[in-house]
Amino acid sequence: MLSKNTIKYIQSLKIKKYRQQNQAYIVEGEKCVTELLHSNIPVLAVYATMNWLEAYENDLRGKQSKAEAITEDELRKISDLTTPNKVLALAGITEYEPLQTIDFSDLILALDSIRDPGNMGTIIRTADWFGIRNIICSPDCVDFYNPKVIQSTMGSFARVKAHYIDLAYSISNAPTGTPIYGALLEGPLLTDKKFQKSGILLIGNESKGISNSLIPFITDPIYIPPFGHGHQNSYHAESLNASIANAIICYEIRKQLTENKL
Amino acid sequence: MLSKNTIKYIQSLKIKKYRQQNQAYIVEGEKCVTELLHSNIPVLAVYATMNWLEAYENDLRGKQSKAEAITEDELRKISDLTTPNKVLALAGITEYEPLQTIDFSDLILALDSIRDPGNMGTIIRTADWFGIRNIICSPDCVDFYNPKVIQSTMGSFARVKAHYIDLAYSISNAPTGTPIYGALLEGPLLTDKKFQKSGILLIGNESKGISNSLIPFITDPIYIPPFGHGHQNSYHAESLNASIANAIICYEIRKQLTENKL
Repeated sequence: MLSKNTIKYIQSLKIKKYRQQNQAYIVEGEKCVTELLHSNIPVLAVYATMNWLEAYENDLRGKQSKAEAITEDELRKISDLTTPNKVLALAGITEYEPLQTIDFSDLILALDSIRDPGNMGTIIRTADWFGIRNIICSPDCVDFYNPKVIQSTMGSFARVKAHYIDLAYSISNAPTGTPIYGALLEGPLLTDKKFQKSGILLIGNESKGISNSLIPFITDPIYIPPFGHGHQNSYHAESLNASIANAIICYEIRKQLTENKL
Repeated sequence: MLSKNTIKYIQSLKIKKYRQQNQAYIVEGEKCVTELLHSNIPVLAVYATMNWLEAYENDLRGKQSKAEAITEDELRKISDLTTPNKVLALAGITEYEPLQTIDFSDLILALDSIRDPGNMGTIIRTADWFGIRNIICSPDCVDFYNPKVIQSTMGSFARVKAHYIDLAYSISNAPTGTPIYGALLEGPLLTDKKFQKSGILLIGNESKGISNSLIPFITDPIYIPPFGHGHQNSYHAESLNASIANAIICYEIRKQLTENKL
């Protein structure tokens, strides 16, 4: 049975300050927890229904001592989900590698003030799909360890690293010649661009776009053409959601590299 | 000043049953409300700060009689947003055209049980960007007029039509030869496909994918290749978010058609 103190402790981890203080975060649901168990991330605790613990015995191998059976009612008390999903685990925040260890020979995402946890999680999930391993985030981006971010990654939090750091500083530290792609609302068409393997793709805030202070760093502005409006140039959406723009550009870059065997 | 009854009425419109009863829905924030004012959708009421009403006098032309100045405090009482944004309007639900009037000569989206309002709104916004005018939704999709859906469309609700109807029925009613594209987790690669102008793109539920009962209708299965993992076929995200998969496929289809001048 969960003690009052444990419930209080887990609930406190919904707040960034306490996650940092305790170097721990919440991972919820079957998909995310199994990804956690298969990763190198420290597992601090697993709270699950008896059925789940039995069904996932293999995945828990070596970690059983941290697992505790709880009831659906208890799960509801600690869950952040509208419909709690059988299991909730606590994971340990691991020290990030310094910026110097980032592999600038491959594509990197740079997120400028992404505030919505769903967008952040979706960007991480998309990055994982397209084999992007490093994301640099301006310090005012939503916290990677926010339960809603972790949830929206659908397990990809276990494979993608987010580095919170001043973007101007980190972009300046990229090797000379690294192209800096910026998703803008005008400029050269995405479909006309020829991409190389390395590069930093800069994605702007949901409502304000890329900060004025970062615009000068962009060497290759990119505009996703609003195809499908014929010759009339009819009225259409003013912009795309940040996670959608990111996905379309990542797709195009990775597609070109695969076709050109880079 | 807003009467208690008005506040109660507006709050009731957060619930589908009352939206249907009153044939009205909430549109919030500067971006969405200006799109509403520029559309043919009936505007039933506009509640805004005095500053907003003055700044948007031109947009309100002909609709001033429906506009009422309210305080930020009053706005908070009726708003669905964490940070209310100057204006909230009520719009009238308009009768949908029957299925027969849908233009099957152009790309149509078919959403199978999309439940998340943010995903639904983002899909509508992306459709608008790529000039897709009609979306058919299974009856268990989240309601188009849900305030969170309207909000996530960023104004595109005013240009894209969603038809709630049995998908098997409506797909069967498409002209013979209409390709039915289905986003699956395996199958022919998106990048190998040659698209034509017409078609129905079937997008599945966030966790369960496309319903088993609809799979047989798919004439052209599509798999978005998880590029960027080299030859090692390393472990990566198991799937993409529904709105992301939709966007990447729409982009590829519209790009091909533009390149081939179809």
